[in-house]
Amino acid sequence: MTSPLRGVYAPVLTPFNDQLEPDVERFIDHARWLVDNQAGLAIFGTNSEAASLSVDERINLTDRLLEAGIPAASLMPGTGACSITDAVTLTRHAVESGAPGVLVLPPFYYKGVSDEGLFAYYAELIERVGDDRLGIYLYHIPQVSHAPISLALIERLRKAYPQTVLGIKDSSGDWNNSKAIIDAFGADGFAVFPASESLLSRAMPHGAAGCISATVNVNPAGIHAVYAGWNGPDGEALQAQADAIRQIFQVLPMIPAMKYVKSQKTGDAQWQNVRPPLTRLAPDVAEKLVRDLEAVSFAVTE
Amino acid sequence: MTSPLRGVYAPVLTPFNDQLEPDVERFIDHARWLVDNQAGLAIFGTNSEAASLSVDERINLTDRLLEAGIPAASLMPGTGACSITDAVTLTRHAVESGAPGVLVLPPFYYKGVSDEGLFAYYAELIERVGDDRLGIYLYHIPQVSHAPISLALIERLRKAYPQTVLGIKDSSGDWNNSKAIIDAFGADGFAVFPASESLLSRAMPHGAAGCISATVNVNPAGIHAVYAGWNGPDGEALQAQADAIRQIFQVLPMIPAMKYVKSQKTGDAQWQNVRPPLTRLAPDVAEKLVRDLEAVSFAVTE
Repeated sequence: MTSPLRGVYAPVLTPFNDQLEPDVERFIDHARWLVDNQAGLAIFGTNSEAASLSVDERINLTDRLLEAGIPAASLMPGTGACSITDAVTLTRHAVESGAPGVLVLPPFYYKGVSDEGLFAYYAELIERVGDDRLGIYLYHIPQVSHAPISLALIERLRKAYPQTVLGIKDSSGDWNNSKAIIDAFGADGFAVFPASESLLSRAMPHGAAGCISATVNVNPAGIHAVYAGWNGPDGEALQAQADAIRQIFQVLPMIPAMKYVKSQKTGDAQWQNVRPPLTRLAPDVAEKLVRDLEAVSFAVTE
Repeated sequence: MTSPLRGVYAPVLTPFNDQLEPDVERFIDHARWLVDNQAGLAIFGTNSEAASLSVDERINLTDRLLEAGIPAASLMPGTGACSITDAVTLTRHAVESGAPGVLVLPPFYYKGVSDEGLFAYYAELIERVGDDRLGIYLYHIPQVSHAPISLALIERLRKAYPQTVLGIKDSSGDWNNSKAIIDAFGADGFAVFPASESLLSRAMPHGAAGCISATVNVNPAGIHAVYAGWNGPDGEALQAQADAIRQIFQVLPMIPAMKYVKSQKTGDAQWQNVRPPLTRLAPDVAEKLVRDLEAVSFAVTE
């Protein structure tokens, strides 16, 4: 089946109050601002601190987003977990909530696991959820998960579950890997989302589906402009401006850096809160971040 | 405070039925056999496939063990999790169940986290549980967690929470690291458990508290004999025999190998089940395992 999802997605930042509980209102506000700027919502990705949330917290945040009127069609929730039990619970809830796709991290505790074991994990998940509406997007982030999604694994999953395994987020940062996946499976409707907007102008003509990128949290309109206009008259300039912003963030701890900028944009210091083991941006680093962003005409305060 | 816990602990294997649900009766039987052989129960360790269990599954298995009459004093449950919410839920339940200690893995999703972030995680856990009965044993397994417990972190935690942070399991396999921890904190009552019985004769005279070792699941009596008799007339022979068994397992995927042997010992093929991403032992590997064990006079069938 051809992936129904394309476009620019944010792994939506998760705000915490001063007791480090998820802050529902700020989460809804941020999601709404992203949607208003034409971004899809890959809630509960790496940059959402999803690993730091319990299953119940993830389900509750999803429910509250939908109650607030955020369209289910905009959601691509992260539902992978080390435990198949948790992955099934989260995936079933996402499907029943109307999410057209879920982004599924492989189990990431055990190291050196085999393709056979990863296939068994995804197969068990698909069989247990047992819902024709399920659309799975694989999550390749080997530098964090230590469980790479190989081309051989994609092939096996596509063959076994052609109606369900619909795409991949490639967070390897390796364009040659994204390209190899598009070359092998793209013609068949498989969607490949690189994890950085810096690859959009190179990836879109080759058949990429868009991108799922951390910095969509701070620059959704700029990144959507590249997605929509890479082949237009302003394509190069749009890409260059998005790249300039991206480069400033990606040399920093991304989550605290984006949360710091969000706190400046909203005038709300609480946005800087992160759950351990992450830590806030150091003051000198934060000051330099603001200066660097202002130097590329990025408005840090509204 | 001086650690109340010493001895030989098994990261208790978790049996699964053919639907890959935790098998409560087999779990209780295995735990009882371990206790009868003088092993403590480090339920929900790495070799318990704890990462593959949900919070609810872990809580339920603990409750059922206690209902079956397994003494709470024998328990050192693993309660670490990527999410502080989950770690608090599991730790609070363990303490309220009467477990005298809990073994706490650091959050293991994010890579390259700082000592500052790990300190914040443990501090947040201790403060939220807020119970004087809590005894924390840190879990150093850098090759899996990618979040090492440094000497500087131990020192900081001991200073902040001297009544609560009572020991460590050192799964690095590096005796020099275990020795450095004992040298730095042992005199003060801090318990160091190497993760292999092969270190017992070297570690016990230096002040180790025992060991927490995977192979206690298959050789509890033999390993306890080393713990109790390393300095007696049979010490060397006991250590050599335990080492011979250990060496056979540690070149294999440990969990499927131990489960295979358990299935042979009990005549119960269901014991071979593992949750993905782990996979069963291949038949040829299993046959060689049995031959190798028989060659060192280890009774694979009862």
